[in-house]
Amino acid sequence: MSSSPLIDRRHLDFMLYELLEVERLARYPRFAEHGRETFDAAIELAHQLAVSKFLPHNRKSDLNEPRMVDGRVELIPEIGESLRAFNEAGFMAVLADFEDGGMQLPFVIGAVCDCMFSAANPSTVAYPALARGVANLLEAYASDEQKRLYMKPIVDGRYYGTMCLSEPQAGSSLADIKTQAEPQADGSYRISGAKMWISAGDHELGENIVHLVLAKIPGGPPGVRGISLFIVPRWRVGDDGARGPRNDVSLAGLNHKMGQRGSVNTFLKFGESGDCHGYLVGQPHQGLTYMFHMMNEERIGVGLGAVQQGSAAYLYSLQYARERRQGRHPDQKDPASPPLPLIEHADVRRMLLLQKCWVEGAQALGFYTALLVDQALDPDDTVRGESALLLDLLTPIIKAWGSDYSLKANELAIQILGGYGYTREYPVEQCYRDNRINPIHEGTNGIQALDLLGRKAMMQNGAALKLLLREIGASCAQAAALPELQALAAQLGAAAKLAGAATAAVGQRMAAGEVRLGLANAGHYMTLLGHVVIGWLWLRQATIAQNALATASEADTAFYQGKLQACRFFFAHELPQVELAAKLVSEAEPSAHAMRAEWF
Amino acid sequence: MSSSPLIDRRHLDFMLYELLEVERLARYPRFAEHGRETFDAAIELAHQLAVSKFLPHNRKSDLNEPRMVDGRVELIPEIGESLRAFNEAGFMAVLADFEDGGMQLPFVIGAVCDCMFSAANPSTVAYPALARGVANLLEAYASDEQKRLYMKPIVDGRYYGTMCLSEPQAGSSLADIKTQAEPQADGSYRISGAKMWISAGDHELGENIVHLVLAKIPGGPPGVRGISLFIVPRWRVGDDGARGPRNDVSLAGLNHKMGQRGSVNTFLKFGESGDCHGYLVGQPHQGLTYMFHMMNEERIGVGLGAVQQGSAAYLYSLQYARERRQGRHPDQKDPASPPLPLIEHADVRRMLLLQKCWVEGAQALGFYTALLVDQALDPDDTVRGESALLLDLLTPIIKAWGSDYSLKANELAIQILGGYGYTREYPVEQCYRDNRINPIHEGTNGIQALDLLGRKAMMQNGAALKLLLREIGASCAQAAALPELQALAAQLGAAAKLAGAATAAVGQRMAAGEVRLGLANAGHYMTLLGHVVIGWLWLRQATIAQNALATASEADTAFYQGKLQACRFFFAHELPQVELAAKLVSEAEPSAHAMRAEWF
Repeated sequence: MSSSPLIDRRHLDFMLYELLEVERLARYPRFAEHGRETFDAAIELAHQLAVSKFLPHNRKSDLNEPRMVDGRVELIPEIGESLRAFNEAGFMAVLADFEDGGMQLPFVIGAVCDCMFSAANPSTVAYPALARGVANLLEAYASDEQKRLYMKPIVDGRYYGTMCLSEPQAGSSLADIKTQAEPQADGSYRISGAKMWISAGDHELGENIVHLVLAKIPGGPPGVRGISLFIVPRWRVGDDGARGPRNDVSLAGLNHKMGQRGSVNTFLKFGESGDCHGYLVGQPHQGLTYMFHMMNEERIGVGLGAVQQGSAAYLYSLQYARERRQGRHPDQKDPASPPLPLIEHADVRRMLLLQKCWVEGAQALGFYTALLVDQALDPDDTVRGESALLLDLLTPIIKAWGSDYSLKANELAIQILGGYGYTREYPVEQCYRDNRINPIHEGTNGIQALDLLGRKAMMQNGAALKLLLREIGASCAQAAALPELQALAAQLGAAAKLAGAATAAVGQRMAAGEVRLGLANAGHYMTLLGHVVIGWLWLRQATIAQNALATASEADTAFYQGKLQACRFFFAHELPQVELAAKLVSEAEPSAHAMRAEWF
Repeated sequence: MSSSPLIDRRHLDFMLYELLEVERLARYPRFAEHGRETFDAAIELAHQLAVSKFLPHNRKSDLNEPRMVDGRVELIPEIGESLRAFNEAGFMAVLADFEDGGMQLPFVIGAVCDCMFSAANPSTVAYPALARGVANLLEAYASDEQKRLYMKPIVDGRYYGTMCLSEPQAGSSLADIKTQAEPQADGSYRISGAKMWISAGDHELGENIVHLVLAKIPGGPPGVRGISLFIVPRWRVGDDGARGPRNDVSLAGLNHKMGQRGSVNTFLKFGESGDCHGYLVGQPHQGLTYMFHMMNEERIGVGLGAVQQGSAAYLYSLQYARERRQGRHPDQKDPASPPLPLIEHADVRRMLLLQKCWVEGAQALGFYTALLVDQALDPDDTVRGESALLLDLLTPIIKAWGSDYSLKANELAIQILGGYGYTREYPVEQCYRDNRINPIHEGTNGIQALDLLGRKAMMQNGAALKLLLREIGASCAQAAALPELQALAAQLGAAAKLAGAATAAVGQRMAAGEVRLGLANAGHYMTLLGHVVIGWLWLRQATIAQNALATASEADTAFYQGKLQACRFFFAHELPQVELAAKLVSEAEPSAHAMRAEWF
């Protein structure tokens, strides 16, 4: 497989087969027929499709956003065409069983395939990505009949789906949703309410749309404990699967976004005419638990999708910096000398190295997190248990750190292109705009930070964090065996210790009842633990690179040197930031907490 | 004067009359007829005009960018209408002499007035701002006849102007420009070449456009020493000032930008038919010196303009955070309790405090820098000399730090608004897009950092930096006299010492011939000195606030408490970042310098 604007193939191979050794997954019975060859074939197919079908209309989608015409959503035709190709190639069923016509690939390989599409065109891939999330949730919690009527057609590429959580008055606060579900004599419900920010909420791409709607059954417990989950199809479906009349779901308006313009974002009203049929999934009042099944996967997807925007712009700015000649070194003023490629300027290199560190570091975290999902199939109880713990802990980090830092990377890509980067004739400003949603949706990064510090780091008496720190310690020991990496290993060890101490300090404060103050610096905790985790993954990459150098080819030597230099750069310029973050968290620095609204 | 979406009036009064005491300027003979009353009247007038004329079409400009129709640029009519009002109110002549019909206001008050317009509509104000820069340059260097023919009509609001520096092959690198100027028998020149990124390069807003064009006279010295400056009017002008035939300047295309869409950005060709008339300004080969006259003022303008976008979005997100209710404290799970205003959440407060610190800090720096321009009129030689030194040193900081951190502030404003912030229905995403150009144009922030470290901090044996550090020391001593501020004063003193030591280390390295390595971390030096300067201005604000608290009214008490809390927040969360920056600069951390192109 070759590289392209979408992917540095050598780096991807390194991630999958040198760092994560994903071919080990073939030991699991489910993946027994798989191996590096089939993994590569799937990735190659995704790559080809992404380049030939998704990339070409990425800019056109941005310039021609969905419109509402006679109450229907009009998309540019290329979206439907590329999704038909996506379905035909089997990517809707990339994880599904062989016997259901799926590829039965590991989650991590599915994630890599998705990365090709989201690097090429994040708006178009949003439609099938959401639909697949809906299918996965139904697979886990729906009845057999619901699976037959609503899940199977999604996997077959005939239906699409949405998740309907937010309401206009309650964006992040699900406790305050007002949508109602009235039970009917036939076991169905009548849904009424309004849902905001619904991606892919209305379109004509498939035969139907399966909305997963959070709503409250009257008389249930207040707050999140009274939320139930409903299937609300756009078109009702007969017992035979035939499409019936339109359900009472109406398109109240479109949101006009900064980016991701090809992916229609809607305001939907349910039951305006009192006749919106919904079907309970699982048990009443368990809706949020089910939805989190989908949301946790989506959070990994959001993090990895963000990183792909970071990566696409990084690769573009790298190519530009190699080709564009401008200026000279500060001690080289002779105007007769030829101008230098931008990449020769130290500050441009700094901006490229930052992008490389953030993007490749977050990519490593994203793929590692995805691998943890697969390790739920491990025959060994301990591996399964530990994988689940780490997955819980790392999910908010890949979502928040991944989206924050890939957005910062986009900033730098624009800066490297200068005036050109600021124009819509070059792709990097669109990368930024498309990426800007990722720190916001699927739980804002502020909420991820609270989840990380207040819940995940504390859960089971800190078991997940302890496990992570043990893993980091093992990697430090491995690296310290190499003289070239000894100092870096010591630095990471010290940083990890700071993270442990900061967590303990917050735990004590929370136990003493100072919950608000303890959590007030959760954002800094995300920086702290995020940088430690990314530093860990860089040290692991450096260890592999250092060991491989002795026998590497010339091209591989340059590649490994780049990994080592990026690791040194991250440890010099980025990792030391954990000290301030740890101090603020540990001391519960109070200035934001103590600020008063009337003082602003 | 009241507050509005554009301005926190109480804060502005504090800046001008408590922090900078600008009414002292009335001691200078030029401003003898001025005082707080006339300053306020001018600002109030600008504010009214900005709210009534500039703000209403800010979004329309963004949605309806300039188009090229039959080779001409078509703008929405509101741009011309508001500029007519701007001219009629006298803002083109805000600094001009009374006897020329001007307001003869200090530069700093002119800058404050400009801030109203740029907060309201940065695209529209770009036209007169550029024209005024051209007029100021001509005032300083042009012949009397050139002033009569080209400068006076600009001041009268009849002509507009541009600065034509960049060329497609040479963006930031003026040594490599290729535009030629062939001398003619009549003393004029024939210009030929292409200029890229020309703001306001073509339009029908006035009777004429005065392009200031950098070009090379054949046979002159190579590089920047051979650059001359020419007046190239769009329409030729007779000796009587009457408009003659079209000059040979053609519009080759428009650039389609991420933001600032109302301000047309052009690609211009000069002399395609061999008949482009240009007129030399001043002496041959001195063009860059003259242009820097304009560019230094524009850099303050860019910094302050950026800060106004930061401020506008900050004020909007502050209002939103006060009004929008969502979620509860982490220890307050009762869903029956009313949701909190966003501003009550610690992480939202953190994002508001960061915006306040960055924006109000940079605003203080911008207005202080503008005041230094005025102090060139001081009767005292020492004051004049010191003001000029500080102005040279601080100009790259207000340009680069101001634009970098106001852009980061825009990021946070979007985040506070969540999904709404990501839509074009709310103004903050446009603030970001409009602001994104500011770290790029008028010299990228990377170039500003090299200018700051390699030139400004080193000039005259470090005289400017020593003076700045002395001023900071004096402010620390004042603050340390107040028990509440003692620790902050000590912290700033230590940070300033780090800046001094880092500068000395780089100086030694450069003297030893290691120029490239010494300057490789110039970007960190900008963070270091920028944070020290902003910390200094916050400590001065806190000192005033602390002293004022004892006798303050209730409303003022809240205001001053806000200033004190923001200062504490900046010193806890932001200022400590100088330690890492100082370390990297002092040690000349080599990883970006040593990275090789083939390792990426």
